[in-house]
Amino acid sequence: MASLHAILLCLIFTTVVSQSIIQISPDHRKIRIDDDIYCESWRFSIETNDAGYWSTIPERCLRFVQDYMTGDRYRYDSELVAENSLKFAKTVEISGNGSDAWVFDIDETLLSNLPYYELNGFGSEKFDEETFDSWVDLAEAPALPASLSLYKELKQLGFKIFLLTGRSEYQRNVTEKNLLYAGFTGWEGLILRGPSDQGNPAIVYKSEKRAELQNEGYKIHGSSGDQWSDLLGFAVARRSFKLPNPMYYIS
Amino acid sequence: MASLHAILLCLIFTTVVSQSIIQISPDHRKIRIDDDIYCESWRFSIETNDAGYWSTIPERCLRFVQDYMTGDRYRYDSELVAENSLKFAKTVEISGNGSDAWVFDIDETLLSNLPYYELNGFGSEKFDEETFDSWVDLAEAPALPASLSLYKELKQLGFKIFLLTGRSEYQRNVTEKNLLYAGFTGWEGLILRGPSDQGNPAIVYKSEKRAELQNEGYKIHGSSGDQWSDLLGFAVARRSFKLPNPMYYIS
Repeated sequence: MASLHAILLCLIFTTVVSQSIIQISPDHRKIRIDDDIYCESWRFSIETNDAGYWSTIPERCLRFVQDYMTGDRYRYDSELVAENSLKFAKTVEISGNGSDAWVFDIDETLLSNLPYYELNGFGSEKFDEETFDSWVDLAEAPALPASLSLYKELKQLGFKIFLLTGRSEYQRNVTEKNLLYAGFTGWEGLILRGPSDQGNPAIVYKSEKRAELQNEGYKIHGSSGDQWSDLLGFAVARRSFKLPNPMYYIS
Repeated sequence: MASLHAILLCLIFTTVVSQSIIQISPDHRKIRIDDDIYCESWRFSIETNDAGYWSTIPERCLRFVQDYMTGDRYRYDSELVAENSLKFAKTVEISGNGSDAWVFDIDETLLSNLPYYELNGFGSEKFDEETFDSWVDLAEAPALPASLSLYKELKQLGFKIFLLTGRSEYQRNVTEKNLLYAGFTGWEGLILRGPSDQGNPAIVYKSEKRAELQNEGYKIHGSSGDQWSDLLGFAVARRSFKLPNPMYYIS
């Protein structure tokens, strides 16, 4: 009789345990899946440029963006961009007269400001120029590993590398210092915003600078950037490569 | 003593049950997550056009694409594209002289060929023109619901709607029939490939047709398409809206 009680208790216990697993699980999943689907859609809309201008990430996607940036996905996505870029680069017939160019953006393309954004809400907080410039002044942004490998391989293949950044001339020294610190060497040109470029939208400023390169005789085969304003406009590269960046948008 | 045995048995049973849950789960998750991260990265690379031309989806992503297309994600992504499109459309000052245009692609933009692709491996099989054309001849492709709502709202706002498709002139009748069947009415023009357009890449053909519209005096404010070849090239719209399509690529 006692053992029957024990078996009954056991059955009840097992049922309760298994039910609590089943019951907690779907609720938990529902909340997570709803946010996840929302944030995946939001990410699709910003990475394809469908959303146009946006200022900060949606509040409910903070955790999503944090997970994306600090987990495997950001790294995997960046690696696949580099892989696709290299695959294309290898199809280019290098002329041998030094006119074959590749244009890289810097922030979130060659250098990662993730250490800064990790301390500043992953794009959920309004952009603060002062604290960001202080971070830039440290010249300690690490390389995006996949981009560093790509950069080296493109040089090896014979491309002339141009770095075209929205940073300003007064940041030239710290930018060079940071690039060298992160392992980048041997670029052909580092183009920063001069006084006459101030106030121009990035897409105009960058198009103008690419046009200047073309006028100098360079053939821009590839262009890599985390912003569509790095890639679209005029004087566009033969192939453009969009790196992921769900943290901020630059027009 | 018997009850002690029963309790012990119960503990062992509960442990085995819970362990089997724990043990199966991570293995299962590991396989799923690896594939998922790979396929998410692959999807990023094709939706941003980083991958350039591709023919069929990666074999290991068949399940991923199937889940994406038949689950909530495709619908949510399409809805957010429509939402972003409408948000922009509402900022456009309609001139009142009938020159404000919006260009829509048809397949996977207004009409969904998902019923066909469901029967043909979701893009995992080589494209078969014959069976696809037979499907087109049925004129039974349903509307993408979010695009149909957007279409109606754009008309309401005063936009002239142009449908610009890679389909050929000989498919004009079935295409019109299908559009009406799916609920689309009142377009300003339906542009299909004529004899002189055959053989042109979609990006060239569609740019040329947009340029013709501009030469006729139309201002193309928005353009919606599931392929980058619907959106890039020349004579591009003021804003372009990329709909999701992880099943096929058109140059």
